Amino acid sequence: MALVVQKYGGSSLESADRIKRVAERIVATKKAGNEVVVVCSAMGDTTDELLDLAEQVNPVPPEREMDMLLTAGERISNALVAMAISAQGAEAWSFTGSQAGVVTTSVHGNARIIDVTPGRVTEALDQGYIALVAGFQGVSQDTKDITTLGRGGSDTTAVALAAALGADACEIYSDVDGVYTADPRIVPDARKLDTVPYEEMLELAASGSKILHLRSVEYARRYGVPIRVRSSYSDKPGTTVTGSIEEIPVEQALITGVAHDRSEAKITVTGVPDHAGAAGRIFRTVADAEIDIDMVLQNVSNTDGRTDITFTLSKANGPSAVSELEALKEDIGFSAVLYDDHVGKVSLVGAGMRSHPGVTASFCEALAEAGVNIEIINTSEIRISVLIRDEHVDDAVRAIHEAFELGGDEEAVVYAGSGR
Amino acid sequence: MALVVQKYGGSSLESADRIKRVAERIVATKKAGNEVVVVCSAMGDTTDELLDLAEQVNPVPPEREMDMLLTAGERISNALVAMAISAQGAEAWSFTGSQAGVVTTSVHGNARIIDVTPGRVTEALDQGYIALVAGFQGVSQDTKDITTLGRGGSDTTAVALAAALGADACEIYSDVDGVYTADPRIVPDARKLDTVPYEEMLELAASGSKILHLRSVEYARRYGVPIRVRSSYSDKPGTTVTGSIEEIPVEQALITGVAHDRSEAKITVTGVPDHAGAAGRIFRTVADAEIDIDMVLQNVSNTDGRTDITFTLSKANGPSAVSELEALKEDIGFSAVLYDDHVGKVSLVGAGMRSHPGVTASFCEALAEAGVNIEIINTSEIRISVLIRDEHVDDAVRAIHEAFELGGDEEAVVYAGSGR
Repeated sequence: MALVVQKYGGSSLESADRIKRVAERIVATKKAGNEVVVVCSAMGDTTDELLDLAEQVNPVPPEREMDMLLTAGERISNALVAMAISAQGAEAWSFTGSQAGVVTTSVHGNARIIDVTPGRVTEALDQGYIALVAGFQGVSQDTKDITTLGRGGSDTTAVALAAALGADACEIYSDVDGVYTADPRIVPDARKLDTVPYEEMLELAASGSKILHLRSVEYARRYGVPIRVRSSYSDKPGTTVTGSIEEIPVEQALITGVAHDRSEAKITVTGVPDHAGAAGRIFRTVADAEIDIDMVLQNVSNTDGRTDITFTLSKANGPSAVSELEALKEDIGFSAVLYDDHVGKVSLVGAGMRSHPGVTASFCEALAEAGVNIEIINTSEIRISVLIRDEHVDDAVRAIHEAFELGGDEEAVVYAGSGR
Repeated sequence: MALVVQKYGGSSLESADRIKRVAERIVATKKAGNEVVVVCSAMGDTTDELLDLAEQVNPVPPEREMDMLLTAGERISNALVAMAISAQGAEAWSFTGSQAGVVTTSVHGNARIIDVTPGRVTEALDQGYIALVAGFQGVSQDTKDITTLGRGGSDTTAVALAAALGADACEIYSDVDGVYTADPRIVPDARKLDTVPYEEMLELAASGSKILHLRSVEYARRYGVPIRVRSSYSDKPGTTVTGSIEEIPVEQALITGVAHDRSEAKITVTGVPDHAGAAGRIFRTVADAEIDIDMVLQNVSNTDGRTDITFTLSKANGPSAVSELEALKEDIGFSAVLYDDHVGKVSLVGAGMRSHPGVTASFCEALAEAGVNIEIINTSEIRISVLIRDEHVDDAVRAIHEAFELGGDEEAVVYAGSGR
């Protein structure tokens, strides 16, 4: 008898009807002889509706209360799924993150899981019940307040539970049927991958792929939990994220896929005096505002002893980063802060590039041939990323996908949905 | 410095705008120098919407999950009120019933409060915070599952907290500005009462008055908590429920008010063999189905040794009581089960009737004069209730109110709303 953890995202739960379909799948999994634990996100638009209500009563809502508010969404969906399961002949109990033993740090809105002690979940399973656990939430170890886990929190809940329970499988359900070599809505011959090693999935997630959230993949890798990405609309086997690139024989290592990201913007601080400390202060200022930076480019100092410093960041943080830097202008003595939000990032990921030195060259040639200019380039051992004009993103993705022959014979099946 | 507990009902919280108004009142109470604890029901239609969703996935939802589902409503409203308070310059923390230490029996959907240990609430008050507590819910002492408290549960939460905290005042806010001598929508010259003793409020609540729920008044009486019934739309002082009829000098004891109730139906079991045990079996059958009975009438046995047994019950239980009784027909040998849901109950309440023997006579005369026929009559020390045709209820209320000169000079102010 296997123990299976399944996670269903908001779009899989967006109506009473979808909830009943999800319950059917859960009950079928139980009747096949498995112990089943299910993690549900809030229904469809619930989280956005709650955020909207919050904003109407307070434009800057206190974080503790935001967590109390938002966690109602998962409570609702998990209770409804438990009810639907009961109507279909199995028994189920739903639990909040706190009741399921998900213990976290105290950072409201972005808490990290410290420990999972799923005693009540195990008890439910032992009594033959299906256990529903509210995703995206836990309880703070220090304050005992309810916390939420940040973006992708329900995926992380599922993986963390799978690890704590020693589950045989962790299945993440959404409206896409697996991880593809590129976004099928851009590249018609994108191919579904059967498996992807953890390190490549981490790079894909960090490079814009919305299939799985970075934190959940990190957690899965740390605890050795295999993740199956599947569609809640079909019975296809999906993609399994498992294993390390170190286990792949050199000659079999591949180029795996192309990711793209339109969520970043570019900031250039021009005419920065080229003395020790100026660059450090610029980056420290942005870091102190709790803003993460991605790609960085610093021009070689030109003849007048000044340099330009360029970096990318999430568009959401753009305005506040600009204003933090503007405040330093007189002090550091740079010329201007330029903001450009018409950029896009395209990345090629694959363990194979470690042993194939020509990959970077082929990558750049493919882009040049497609008329795409590279503004910043950034690499890791298994990834090449470039910053380009956002209107060129689709062409770039297609050109790279083609150049590395990633396409399959069958036309990719595209489901309506955001890729989550 | 006083400790004030305030409770706001769903209609006082039905939109972001109403929530901000409620927050203004709460902050004003705090700024006047009080410690403030607030209990909020779910927003307007939330509970009904959740019930509807539940019914769509399971026509007979498991009770444990129904409690997990419905309690999301209070979580949402309390978090939003806390946010609104924060936007207006005070600080607030919201707590679930469980977090606030409301410990209950295990009966899902109708749990009773066993104990209230409001440690986290007291902590919040000590740190200068306003404490919000989700009404209508608690945690089961035995199973540690979340429970809901049944009808009027938020009123009961407020009174129980007031008792546990030794509060100076417990204010129940709704869309009516107090307890009236009769429903102002029926009787234009109904007068608002300044105070009402506990026993009379209990009778009014049991006789159909929807201002306060029976259980909360019982709790208040047991722990000596004075309740102020006020409108959230005005600053009027409202009605205070406090004191015992035993404290009222005989000559000052009054007739207090008229209540009416359209929620009951009448069942008559005809031709019941007049032998020992038949009536007992009929009542036992209904009781075993967990159906409460109100008024009872048994005809004197007529010449053929058969009798009719009549009783009233909540309309909601009508159909199942009928079917339970139909099943006994052959066994007991009665003739038929008749069901009549066009009845209404009208009651006169007042400690004064203990010392005024003519009250029952005046009551019946007033009804006769208004052309209203009495089908069943039932009295307690301080209440007279009659069952009549439902189309006569309004006339009966007016006739009795007039006969006992309960009207005031000012026309009653009637707010849109259900009287909750």
